[in-house]
Amino acid sequence: MNIKPLQDRVVVRRVEEKKETASGILLPGSAQEKENMGEVVAVGPGKASDSGTIIAMTVKVGDKVMFGQYSGQEVKDDNGEKLMIMREDDIIAVIG
Amino acid sequence: MNIKPLQDRVVVRRVEEKKETASGILLPGSAQEKENMGEVVAVGPGKASDSGTIIAMTVKVGDKVMFGQYSGQEVKDDNGEKLMIMREDDIIAVIG
Amino acid sequence: MNIKPLQDRVVVRRVEEKKETASGILLPGSAQEKENMGEVVAVGPGKASDSGTIIAMTVKVGDKVMFGQYSGQEVKDDNGEKLMIMREDDIIAVIG
Amino acid sequence: MNIKPLQDRVVVRRVEEKKETASGILLPGSAQEKENMGEVVAVGPGKASDSGTIIAMTVKVGDKVMFGQYSGQEVKDDNGEKLMIMREDDIIAVIG
Amino acid sequence: MNIKPLQDRVVVRRVEEKKETASGILLPGSAQEKENMGEVVAVGPGKASDSGTIIAMTVKVGDKVMFGQYSGQEVKDDNGEKLMIMREDDIIAVIG
Amino acid sequence: MNIKPLQDRVVVRRVEEKKETASGILLPGSAQEKENMGEVVAVGPGKASDSGTIIAMTVKVGDKVMFGQYSGQEVKDDNGEKLMIMREDDIIAVIG
Amino acid sequence: MNIKPLQDRVVVRRVEEKKETASGILLPGSAQEKENMGEVVAVGPGKASDSGTIIAMTVKVGDKVMFGQYSGQEVKDDNGEKLMIMREDDIIAVIG
Repeated sequence: MNIKPLQDRVVVRRVEEKKETASGILLPGSAQEKENMGEVVAVGPGKASDSGTIIAMTVKVGDKVMFGQYSGQEVKDDNGEKLMIMREDDIIAVIG
Repeated sequence: MNIKPLQDRVVVRRVEEKKETASGILLPGSAQEKENMGEVVAVGPGKASDSGTIIAMTVKVGDKVMFGQYSGQEVKDDNGEKLMIMREDDIIAVIG
Repeated sequence: MNIKPLQDRVVVRRVEEKKETASGILLPGSAQEKENMGEVVAVGPGKASDSGTIIAMTVKVGDKVMFGQYSGQEVKDDNGEKLMIMREDDIIAVIG
Repeated sequence: MNIKPLQDRVVVRRVEEKKETASGILLPGSAQEKENMGEVVAVGPGKASDSGTIIAMTVKVGDKVMFGQYSGQEVKDDNGEKLMIMREDDIIAVIG
Repeated sequence: MNIKPLQDRVVVRRVEEKKETASGILLPGSAQEKENMGEVVAVGPGKASDSGTIIAMTVKVGDKVMFGQYSGQEVKDDNGEKLMIMREDDIIAVIG
Repeated sequence: MNIKPLQDRVVVRRVEEKKETASGILLPGSAQEKENMGEVVAVGPGKASDSGTIIAMTVKVGDKVMFGQYSGQEVKDDNGEKLMIMREDDIIAVIG
Repeated sequence: MNIKPLQDRVVVRRVEEKKETASGILLPGSAQEKENMGEVVAVGPGKASDSGTIIAMTVKVGDKVMFGQYSGQEVKDDNGEKLMIMREDDIIAVIG
């Protein structure tokens, strides 16, 4: 299944965080924060402005991004992998 | 009954998911997610911008689409078939 | 009484659904859905855009239309006939 | 007292409905509906658009109009007559 | 104290209504309505439009005006006189 | 500490009202109203319009101003002096 | 981890306030206010206007800024340092 987002939407694969350290200790706080990060796997064509022109996207496939805590909608692809679809505006920063 | 949606509205026929496997086991979780997918069966002419020009539609008849969980309004055609009418903006991705 | 709607408003005469079958059995579910359909009996001149030009109407007198469940305002004309007045934006599709 | 409404406001004199029939029977339902009708007695110059031009009014003095149920503000003139002041957008139709 | 309102604000001196008749009887209803009237004592320069031009004011000092019931903010000048400051949009009519 | 407000923000030093008369009597009502007055001590460069141009400020340093009761945010400078930062739109009048 | 904010977002390192005086006495009130100050450590490229042009940023890296009490979102970088990401509009003043 190939998901092609519309408008200024972005498909993000969440970073799967190791929830334990090498020695097996859970690190809940830090791990939870990392769940708002991911990698862009698909990018829409951009939103149409009021005048009809398309506003170019800023993020691109492969970018590591950080997004708002309650942003986007979770979808599952054919492999059962959970992905997030959100508007580019929900992405607050690119991590480089 | 031929439904011609106005503006940027789209008529979508929901994917009827098999709710059991070949061996008869229910698969509720996955099936529920699939209910937010469907096939476009009619497309409006596009919304008028503030300046009066029509903004072209992105989706077309036959597209497999994914839409937001609480999007659109359910209508029933003469054959008793349930269809969804929603704005194009409620469609989050085309599946290809 | 001749009702001339202002702006982008539309006057719709609801379809009066037979609520029983030939054999006298009530069909509440289906009938209820049909109540959101009707025939356009009057159309306003169109809404003025911000720049002052009039945006042309899409529906016309005689169109069979489908509208949102809680759209519009019910008025009664001199014959006691109930009519709906709504904005064109409340009309979701033309049935042809 | 001469009330000159500002912008796109309209002064409407409500239709005083006879609340009884010739034989003295009260007709509450129908009468109540008629209370949302009236005659335009004064019209503002029109609202300024964002660009500063004045958008012309559609209704004129003498028009019989129908307005939304909770529209406008009641004022009393020097003769104790109750009048409604509302924005033109609150007027849904002209009755002709 | 000289109050110079900013933008499209207007300073209004409320009409002080006699609350009793000549014979000393209170007239609460009618008096209460009159409290939403007053005389304009100062007028701002007008609001800037989005393009930066100033939209001229419609009311002028000396106008008798009628305003919405919960409009504006009460201020007291150095003489202890209560004045109302409101936006011109809160003024619904000029009384002439 | 020198506070340079951004956009159309204004820094106001509230008028410190004497809360007693010469004879030591408290005047709570009148004093409370005066607390919504102050002197402008810093002015931002102005807000950018949608087209990118800066809309000039109307108030200037030294102006005595009156502002809305719940406007702005209180900050304390290095001397422990309380100042208000608000948008120019929260200032309703200049007192001259 | 290098955080590159999108649009008009700004990354701010909060001022770590000493919560005790030299003599060890807690100063809760004043310290709490200082928590709404910080230093800009990264700045986005600016927000696109409706017409597609980028509106330049006002703050720059190194600026000491004051921001609204409930503004922004806290993120933690790889060193465990807490940073705030907010829109430039949430910054009320530059401290110089």
